[in-house]
Amino acid sequence: MKSRWFTPLLIALTLASIAVHFWSTNEPLRFTLASISLLLWAALLGKATESVAHYAGERLGGFLNATFGNAAELIIAIFLVQKGLFDMVKASITGSIIGNLLLVLGLSIFAGGLKFKTQSFNTLLAGHNASLMLLAVIALFSPAAFDTQLDPSEMETFSLIIAGLLIASYLLWLIFSMITHKKELGEEPAVEVPTSDISQTSVAHEEKPEWTKNRSILLLFIAAVFVAIQSEWIVGSVEAVAHTLGWSELFVGAFLIAIIGNAAEHSAAIFLAMRNRIGAAVEIAVGSSLQIALFVAPALVFISLLFGKTMNLTFTAIEIAAIAIAAFIATSISRDGSTNWFEGVLLLIVYAILGTGFYLV
Amino acid sequence: MKSRWFTPLLIALTLASIAVHFWSTNEPLRFTLASISLLLWAALLGKATESVAHYAGERLGGFLNATFGNAAELIIAIFLVQKGLFDMVKASITGSIIGNLLLVLGLSIFAGGLKFKTQSFNTLLAGHNASLMLLAVIALFSPAAFDTQLDPSEMETFSLIIAGLLIASYLLWLIFSMITHKKELGEEPAVEVPTSDISQTSVAHEEKPEWTKNRSILLLFIAAVFVAIQSEWIVGSVEAVAHTLGWSELFVGAFLIAIIGNAAEHSAAIFLAMRNRIGAAVEIAVGSSLQIALFVAPALVFISLLFGKTMNLTFTAIEIAAIAIAAFIATSISRDGSTNWFEGVLLLIVYAILGTGFYLV
Amino acid sequence: MKSRWFTPLLIALTLASIAVHFWSTNEPLRFTLASISLLLWAALLGKATESVAHYAGERLGGFLNATFGNAAELIIAIFLVQKGLFDMVKASITGSIIGNLLLVLGLSIFAGGLKFKTQSFNTLLAGHNASLMLLAVIALFSPAAFDTQLDPSEMETFSLIIAGLLIASYLLWLIFSMITHKKELGEEPAVEVPTSDISQTSVAHEEKPEWTKNRSILLLFIAAVFVAIQSEWIVGSVEAVAHTLGWSELFVGAFLIAIIGNAAEHSAAIFLAMRNRIGAAVEIAVGSSLQIALFVAPALVFISLLFGKTMNLTFTAIEIAAIAIAAFIATSISRDGSTNWFEGVLLLIVYAILGTGFYLV
Repeated sequence: MKSRWFTPLLIALTLASIAVHFWSTNEPLRFTLASISLLLWAALLGKATESVAHYAGERLGGFLNATFGNAAELIIAIFLVQKGLFDMVKASITGSIIGNLLLVLGLSIFAGGLKFKTQSFNTLLAGHNASLMLLAVIALFSPAAFDTQLDPSEMETFSLIIAGLLIASYLLWLIFSMITHKKELGEEPAVEVPTSDISQTSVAHEEKPEWTKNRSILLLFIAAVFVAIQSEWIVGSVEAVAHTLGWSELFVGAFLIAIIGNAAEHSAAIFLAMRNRIGAAVEIAVGSSLQIALFVAPALVFISLLFGKTMNLTFTAIEIAAIAIAAFIATSISRDGSTNWFEGVLLLIVYAILGTGFYLV
Repeated sequence: MKSRWFTPLLIALTLASIAVHFWSTNEPLRFTLASISLLLWAALLGKATESVAHYAGERLGGFLNATFGNAAELIIAIFLVQKGLFDMVKASITGSIIGNLLLVLGLSIFAGGLKFKTQSFNTLLAGHNASLMLLAVIALFSPAAFDTQLDPSEMETFSLIIAGLLIASYLLWLIFSMITHKKELGEEPAVEVPTSDISQTSVAHEEKPEWTKNRSILLLFIAAVFVAIQSEWIVGSVEAVAHTLGWSELFVGAFLIAIIGNAAEHSAAIFLAMRNRIGAAVEIAVGSSLQIALFVAPALVFISLLFGKTMNLTFTAIEIAAIAIAAFIATSISRDGSTNWFEGVLLLIVYAILGTGFYLV
Repeated sequence: MKSRWFTPLLIALTLASIAVHFWSTNEPLRFTLASISLLLWAALLGKATESVAHYAGERLGGFLNATFGNAAELIIAIFLVQKGLFDMVKASITGSIIGNLLLVLGLSIFAGGLKFKTQSFNTLLAGHNASLMLLAVIALFSPAAFDTQLDPSEMETFSLIIAGLLIASYLLWLIFSMITHKKELGEEPAVEVPTSDISQTSVAHEEKPEWTKNRSILLLFIAAVFVAIQSEWIVGSVEAVAHTLGWSELFVGAFLIAIIGNAAEHSAAIFLAMRNRIGAAVEIAVGSSLQIALFVAPALVFISLLFGKTMNLTFTAIEIAAIAIAAFIATSISRDGSTNWFEGVLLLIVYAILGTGFYLV
C-alpha cells in the first residue's frame, strides 16, 4: 500500500464497478471489474488486519476480521431465512465452515509453510479451538441423531434450546478468551524458522505500522464492507454461470459461494501466514468457523422465529459428515500448535475429496 | 466437620430419616429428611475421600470413592437384571457414564476453575484415561455394528467374549496403574495458581488431617454405604414424581436416577476440585465412568447368565452416540492435563444438550 | 545370526520347502517345512532391517521393510483384481491395515514394554502419522457416505479422483518426511529406561553391525522376497484348512491371511521393539498401514482400469468401522510418542474384539 497509485486505483475501480453493476447488463464486464476491485479491497483488508493485530494482538485482529467477514454472510442468510429457503441456508453454513477449516486454513498453512519450515502458535488456544469445534459437531449431530424419535414441534423446541446453549457458550468463550484467560491464550513468542532451501526473507515483526490504531480498525471495517458487497455481486454472476453449466444447488451453495463469500478471511489469513503470523491466520480461519457454527447458525434459528416459521438444526447426513470430517482433520493437524507445508496439503486434499463428492451428487 | 454439632446432627437426621422411611407414608417428609441427611453424609464422604487421598495418594482415594459409589449401583443393577429389565439396566449404565463424564467432571472443573485460574493433573494419566474411554466406546459400539449380521445366540457369544475382554483389560489396568507404573501416573507437583480476581485463598496441602488412615478408610466406607442407601430412597420418591409428570423411562433412568445415584461421586469430586486437588476429582469422575463401562457393565453380562437369560451388550444407537459424545468431549478438554472454568462449562453444555434430547424423546 | 549353523540350516530348509511345494502333495509336510523356513527368513529379515536402520536411520529402515513386505501383498492383490474379486481385495486391504495397526503394533509395544518401562519416539512423527491415518479413514468413508446418491459411473469417477489424491498425498508425504523435514521427523535421542523388576539387559545401540550397508539392504530385499513367497504358500494351506472348518471368507481374508501375509512386518517390528528401537517398530507397523491405505489401495483402483473393470473404493460399513476403530485407538495410544506394555494390551484387546466379530459374521 506504500505505492502512490494504490488508493486512486482502488477508488477508480470501485466506482467503475459500481457504475457497471447498476447501469450495465454486460455480465463479463461486471464480473471482471468486480473481481479486480475485490482483489484490491481484499489486499487492503489483509494489510488492515495485520495493522490491527500489531496494536491489539493477533487474536483480536483475527476476531475482528472474522466478525466483519461473517456479518456479511449473516445478512445474506437472513434474506434466505425470510424466504424460507432453509436448505440453502444450511448448505451455505456447511460450506462456510468447511471452507474456512479446510481451504482458508489449508492455503494459509501451505503458503506459510513454503516460506517458513515450521510455524507455531499457542497450543492452549489450539486445544480450546478443538474442543469448541467438537461442541459444534455434537450440537449439529444431536438433532439428526434424535430426528426419527421427535415430531416436528419437539424438534423445534430441541433446536431452539441447542441454539440458546450454543450462543451462551460462544459468549462465555469470548469472556474466557478475551477477559479471564486473555494472557494464557495470547501469542507465543514468535520463533521464526525460515526454511533454508526456499526463502530466507524473514519479516521483522517490529516494522512500524503505517496507520494508527483507530485508522487501522476503520480501514478494516470499510474494507470488509466493500469485500462483502463485491463478493456478493460476484456470487450473483457465478451462480448464473453455474446454473447454466448444470451444477447442483448443493455444490454451488457449499463450495462456490462459500469460496467467494469468504474472500475476506482468505486474503487476510494467507497474507498473515506468509508474514509468519500463523497464529492470526488460525484465529481468522478457525475463529470464523466457530463463529458461524456457534453464533451465526443458532442466531438464524432465533431470527427465523421472527418470520413465523422456525428453522430447525437438522442438517443432512452428508452435511454433518462433511463438517465432522473438516473439524477432525483440522484438529488433528493443529492440535500441537505447530504447522508446516505438508499439513496444509492434507487439508486441501480433504477439501478436494469433499468438493468432488458434493460436485458429483 | 470441626464443628461440634455435625456428628450429633448427622446421627439424629439419619435416625429420623430411617424412622419415616419405614413407618411413615408422608412422601414429602420422607423425601426432605432423606435429602438433608444425604447432604450431610455426602459432605462426610468428601472429607473422608480427601483424608484418604492425603495418606494414600489422590489416585487411590479417588479409586476407593468411585468403587464404593459404584458398588451401590451394581447392587441395584443386579436386581434389575434378575427381573430381566435389560433396557433399564443399559439406560442406567449410559446415564451413569455420561453423568460422571459430563456433569460430575463438568461441575468439578467449573467449581475448581472459579477458584483457581488453571488446575493441572498428570498428563500421562489423562492420555491413558482417554484410551480406556475409547476402548469402552469401541466395545459398546461393536455389538451394534455387527447387530444385523448376527443371530441372537451369536450376539450372546459376542457379548460374553467382549465382556471377558473388558474385565481382563480393567484388571490389567489396575495392575498397570497401581503396581507397575504407579509412580508415572502419580500426582504432579501441585502448582497452585489462584485466580487473581476471584479468590486468593490457597489451601495448604500440608494441612494435618483430622483422622488416622484406617479411620479415614472406615469413614469413607460407612459414608458411602449411607449415601448409597439414602440416594436409593430418594430415587424411589423421584421416580414416583417423574412418572406422575409423564417423563420418559429413558430420561428418568439415564438422567434423574444417574444424577442422584452418583451423589457420592458428585459431592467428593466437587469438594476436592475446590481444594485444588483436581487430579483426585478427575480420578473420581473419569475413574468411575471407566469402572462402570469396563467392569460393572461386563460383570452384569456374566451375572445375567446366572439368572438364566443372557443380557447382551447391544445398546441403542442413541445410547452409544451419547456415550461416544461424552467420551470425546471429556477427552478433548482433559487430554492436556490442565483445566479451567470454561472447560467445565463446555462439559455442562453438552450434558444439557443430551439431557434435552433424552427428555424430549 | 552369529551362530555358524544358521546359514546352512536356512538354505537346507528353504530347498526342502521348495522341493515339497512342487513335488509333494503331503499337505502337513509342506505346511510344516514352509512355516519353519519362514520363521528363519523372518528372523533374518528382522536382523537385516535393524542393520539398515543402523546405517540409514530407523525411518528408512522401517520404510524399506514395509515396502518390501507390501510389494508382495500388492502382487497378490493384482491377481485378485484381474479376476474381478473386488470384495476379497477390499477385505484383505482392511485386514492388512487393522492387522498392522492393532496386532503388529500391539505385539511390538507389549513385547517392548515388558523389557523397558517406557519407550519413546518422535512425537512430531506420531502426530503426522495420526493425521495421515485420519486422511485414510476419511478417504475410505467418503465414497460410502455418498454411495446412495451416486450412480455406479459417478462412483467410479469419485473413486478414481480420490485414488489420485491419495497417491499424490503419499508421494508428497515421502518428499516431506524424507527430504524437506527429514531431520524434524528423525529419531529422538534414545532414552533407555529398563524396567527395574523385569529385565535389566539394555542393548547398546552402538553395537557394530555385522554387515555393510549395501549387504544389509540386499539381505533385507532377499529375505523379504522369501518371506513373501513362503507366507503365500502357507496362506494356500491355511485357506484350505479354514474352508474345511467352515470359516467365513471375510474372517479368512481379513484376519488369517493378513496375519500370515504380514509376517515380514510382524517379525521385524517385534524384534526391533525388544531392542528398544520402538521408533522403527512404529514406522514399520503404522508406515505399512499408511502405505496400504494411501498407495496400495488407490494403485489397485488404477490397475483395475487396465483390466477393463474399475474397482471402486466403497468399502462395507463394517470394514470402514474396523479401519476407523483401529486408526483411532492406535492414534490415541501413540500420539504422545511414548508407549508401555499396557498400551500394547489395549491394541490387542481391540484386535480380539474385531476378530471375534468378523469370525462370528
